[in-house]
Amino acid sequence: MFHLGLVPGRAWGALLCQLLRPPRTVCVRAVGCHGQVAEAVLTSQLKPHQEKPNFIIKVPKGTRDLSPQQMVVREKILDKIISCFKRHGAKGLDTPAFELKEMLTEKYEENLRLMYDLKDQGGELLSLRYDLTVPFARYLAMNKLKKMKRYQVGKVWRRESPTIAQGRYREFCQCDFDIAGQYDPMIPDAECLKIMCEILSGLQLGDFLIKVNDRRIVDGMYAVCGVPESKFRAICASMDKLDKMSWKDVRHEMVVKKGLAPEVADRIGDYVQCHGGISLVEQMFQDPRLSQSKLAVEGLADLKLLFEYLTLFGIAEKISFDLSLARGLDYYTGVIFEAVLLQLPAQAGDEPLNVGSVAAGGRYDELVSQFDPKGHTVPCVGLSIGVERIFYIVEQKMKTSGEKVRTTETQVFVATAQKNFLQERLKLIAQLWDAGIKAEMLYKNNPKLLTQLHYCENMGIPLVIIIGEQEQNEGVIKLRSVASREEVTVKRENLITEIQKRLSES
Amino acid sequence: MFHLGLVPGRAWGALLCQLLRPPRTVCVRAVGCHGQVAEAVLTSQLKPHQEKPNFIIKVPKGTRDLSPQQMVVREKILDKIISCFKRHGAKGLDTPAFELKEMLTEKYEENLRLMYDLKDQGGELLSLRYDLTVPFARYLAMNKLKKMKRYQVGKVWRRESPTIAQGRYREFCQCDFDIAGQYDPMIPDAECLKIMCEILSGLQLGDFLIKVNDRRIVDGMYAVCGVPESKFRAICASMDKLDKMSWKDVRHEMVVKKGLAPEVADRIGDYVQCHGGISLVEQMFQDPRLSQSKLAVEGLADLKLLFEYLTLFGIAEKISFDLSLARGLDYYTGVIFEAVLLQLPAQAGDEPLNVGSVAAGGRYDELVSQFDPKGHTVPCVGLSIGVERIFYIVEQKMKTSGEKVRTTETQVFVATAQKNFLQERLKLIAQLWDAGIKAEMLYKNNPKLLTQLHYCENMGIPLVIIIGEQEQNEGVIKLRSVASREEVTVKRENLITEIQKRLSES
Repeated sequence: MFHLGLVPGRAWGALLCQLLRPPRTVCVRAVGCHGQVAEAVLTSQLKPHQEKPNFIIKVPKGTRDLSPQQMVVREKILDKIISCFKRHGAKGLDTPAFELKEMLTEKYEENLRLMYDLKDQGGELLSLRYDLTVPFARYLAMNKLKKMKRYQVGKVWRRESPTIAQGRYREFCQCDFDIAGQYDPMIPDAECLKIMCEILSGLQLGDFLIKVNDRRIVDGMYAVCGVPESKFRAICASMDKLDKMSWKDVRHEMVVKKGLAPEVADRIGDYVQCHGGISLVEQMFQDPRLSQSKLAVEGLADLKLLFEYLTLFGIAEKISFDLSLARGLDYYTGVIFEAVLLQLPAQAGDEPLNVGSVAAGGRYDELVSQFDPKGHTVPCVGLSIGVERIFYIVEQKMKTSGEKVRTTETQVFVATAQKNFLQERLKLIAQLWDAGIKAEMLYKNNPKLLTQLHYCENMGIPLVIIIGEQEQNEGVIKLRSVASREEVTVKRENLITEIQKRLSES
Repeated sequence: MFHLGLVPGRAWGALLCQLLRPPRTVCVRAVGCHGQVAEAVLTSQLKPHQEKPNFIIKVPKGTRDLSPQQMVVREKILDKIISCFKRHGAKGLDTPAFELKEMLTEKYEENLRLMYDLKDQGGELLSLRYDLTVPFARYLAMNKLKKMKRYQVGKVWRRESPTIAQGRYREFCQCDFDIAGQYDPMIPDAECLKIMCEILSGLQLGDFLIKVNDRRIVDGMYAVCGVPESKFRAICASMDKLDKMSWKDVRHEMVVKKGLAPEVADRIGDYVQCHGGISLVEQMFQDPRLSQSKLAVEGLADLKLLFEYLTLFGIAEKISFDLSLARGLDYYTGVIFEAVLLQLPAQAGDEPLNVGSVAAGGRYDELVSQFDPKGHTVPCVGLSIGVERIFYIVEQKMKTSGEKVRTTETQVFVATAQKNFLQERLKLIAQLWDAGIKAEMLYKNNPKLLTQLHYCENMGIPLVIIIGEQEQNEGVIKLRSVASREEVTVKRENLITEIQKRLSES
C-alpha cells in the first residue's frame, strides 16, 4: 500500500523523477537554488573607513537559511515527530552545541576528520557536536543516571567533504529518541521501530521499509568470512556505503583500499545480498558458516524475539532483515536499523527502489561506560530522524500540489478608508492584542484602503476591521470577511466577542 | 501594581533575596549547582586500548545541559514568547549557527574579542553567531528584501571572560522580533515596546520598567558635553555598564581607561541621573546644552511621538525615558530600550531597585546597508528577550511554590498483575499509540503490580489499564484512576472510546 497523501498520481510521477536522482544531487540543487540569491558582490561600502576588497554575501558552505515558507514546513514536520516522541513517554533534554573535544574523540574513529573544531582562543579545546547520541551518553554518565527515556531535537554539524559527499548539508537538524536502562531484551528495541513506523506513516511520505540487522551478526559474518578483527570497523565503514555505491565498488574499496583478500570479500558479497523477514532469520540459524559464530547466533536469537514483538505491534511487514546493513558509527553493539523510502513500483519495474535513508538507529550498550569513571554500563537503544531529507520531500510535495503556505497566523487586520485614523487604529489593535487575537495593521499614517485589502488577500488574513469617521461617530466598526467580501456593522463594545465567535466557528 | 502570580507574598520575599544578589552571582550559582554533578574524575577506561590521563566529565565552561525539568519550564516560556510574536504577525526564520567571520567583524567593534571562532580546517573562516540581529540583516541584504517582520529563536555564543563577567553563560538562547522596512516614524518602534510589555506581563515576573533612550540623544549629549567624536563608541560602551557598576566606577573607567577629560565626564554625569516620562522629554527640549544638538533634538522629537503611541497602547506608565541608557552594541542608530524587573518597594525602601535586564532592543537603520552591494538602506527596529534570566526567575518561583513539574505527558499506563502478559500488553499499548493516546508500560516481561502503580504515581500518569487472565477471558480490561484508585471494567472494544472520553473530561 502506498500513502499518496494529498498529491495526485501524476504529481507523484514528477516528484519521483526528482527523487530518482541520487540523494546527493538532490541536496546540491537545494543549495544551488538558495545560493543564487546569495551571489551579490559587495563592491562598495557605505562607511568611509571600511575599505576592504569585494566580498560575496553568503552563508557558510553546506549551510542554509530557512525562509518563512520553509520554517512553516519544518515546524509541521517537527511537531509531528515531537508529538510521537511524547506519545511514547519521552522527556526532553538539551545539551550544548559544542563539547570538550576529548569527549567526542574515540567515539567516531572512522569519522573524526568530519568534526568541526573551535579555534583555540585560550582555555578548553572544543568541537561542535557530531550527533545527539554521544552528548546523551555523556549526560547520563555525568549525572549518574541509570535509566532515561528522552528525546532531543537540535542541530549537529559534520564537515562532509564536498568531493566525497557532494552537497550534503554540513549543518543539519536531528530528532533523536533513546531509551537508556537495563530491561528485558528487545522490548525497547521494538518500541524504537514502532516509533519510526508511526512517524513515517504520519508524515505520509509514501511507502517505506525499515532494514534491520545486528552488529553481532555483522561481526560474526566478518569472522566466519575471514576478516581479521583489526579490520572489522574499517570494513564495516565500507559496507555502510552500500546504499550509495554498488557492491562492485564497495568490494573494490574493501580489497584495494582496506587490503582485504578478494576471496574474503566475495564471501561477504554472498551474505550482503540476503534480505527478508523472520524466515531469513530462521534460515541463517541453519547457515553452515554463520551458525559457527556465537556472536552471530546471539544476534539472530534477539532478532527472532524482535520480530515476535513487531508482529504484536502490527508492523512486521514493514521490517526487513538485511545482511547488507552495517551503519557507519562505531558505537553500535547490537540491533541496528535504517528506514528507507520506497519508490512506487509502477515507476521502475517490480522491485521497489531505495530513494534514501530517512531514519536510523540501533543499540549502543557500551557508550555510556566510556564516560563513566567506574566503567558502569548503561545499555541504550535509540533512533534518529533525518529531518533534512524528509523536509525536502514534503517541500517538493507541497510545491507539486500547489498548496499555498501561510507564513503568518494573523486573524484580523485593522484598516481604515480615511485619513487621520492612526490613533484609532492603534487603540483598536492594542485591544485585539490584549484579548489574545492575532492582529496586524500597516505602519503608515494614512494608508490606502486598497493597499490594506490587498495585503490581507496576499497574506491570507481572514477578517478585516474597518474604522472611519461615520463608524466612529456611531460607536461601531465594520467587520469584513476577506473571502466573501461581506461586511457587517458591529458595536465597538461587542467587537472582541464577535471576532472571537467568528474565529471559533472557522 | 505588582504581578504576584501564583507565588504567595512570603515566598516572594525569599525569591527576592535571591534576586537581590548581583545578577552575575545568580548565574554563577546556577552553573555551580549543575557543575557538582559533573565533577567525576575518570580514573579508568573500559576499553583496553584507551590509555589517557584522568579527565573530568563536564560540559564546556559557561555552557550547561537542560534537564527534563528545566526543559518543561523552558518550553513554557518559549511558547508564551513565540505566541506573542505570532500574535503580532511575525514570520519565522532560521539561520546557521555560524557565519563567515567577515560577515560578523566590524558589526561589534567593542565586542569582537568575545566571538567564538572556528578552527581553520581548510576552507572558509567561520565564527559562531554573536546575536540574531546581524544574521537577520545579512539575510535581508542577501535576499534583497526591503521589508520583513520576523521572529527567530535560537542559541548565540559569547566568550564572556569570567574575570570581567563572571559566570555569565557563554551559550544562551535569544528570542528576537524585528520589523524591517521604511515606515512612518515610531509606529513599529512602539509595537516593539508593546510586545515587550505583553511578554513580561504574560510571564508574571513581577513589576517591570522599560528604559528608553535614543542613540542620537546619547551622541548629541556626548557632543555637547565635549566628548571627541572618535571616543563616542568607547564611551558608550562604558556607559552601558551603568546597570552593573556605579557612576563613580564608570566615570573612573571613562577618565582613566578611555582618557576622557574629568570635567567632560562630570557633564555626562549630570545627564545620566535623569529619568522620567514624557515630561522629561519636554524638559530636555528646553535644556540649554542638549537643545544645541540637532541630533539630540531629532531623537527627542521621535521620543515625543513614541510616547504618544505608547499612551494609545495603554503602556506609557511602564516606560521611562532614561538618559543613562546606552546599549553596548555598535549598530544602533535611533531609539534604544531595555526592560528591567523591579523589586517590590516594601523590601528595600521606596525606590524600586533594578534586578537585571530581561529584554532589550532598538533601531538599527544602517546595518543592512553594510551588507548590501549598493549600500541600499533597510531601516530596522527590533527586540531581544533574554530567556536565561527569565528562565532562572521562573524556575526559582516554581521551586519556592513547591509546584511539581511533570516531565512527560503520558496519559495511560498499561499494567498487569500476572505473569506472562507481555504479549497482551504489547498489543494493547500499540492500539493506544495508534489511536494517538500517550501511553507507557514497563519494559519487563513480568513486572510487579506495585512497581507499575508506583511508577504511575511518581510520573503523574492519570489512568492505568490493568489486564489479567480473568479480564482476558471475559474480553474486558480494568480502567483505574490513579488519583482516586477507583476501578471500572470496560469492554475491550470500547476501550479507546472510554479513554478518550475520560481524557477529554479531565
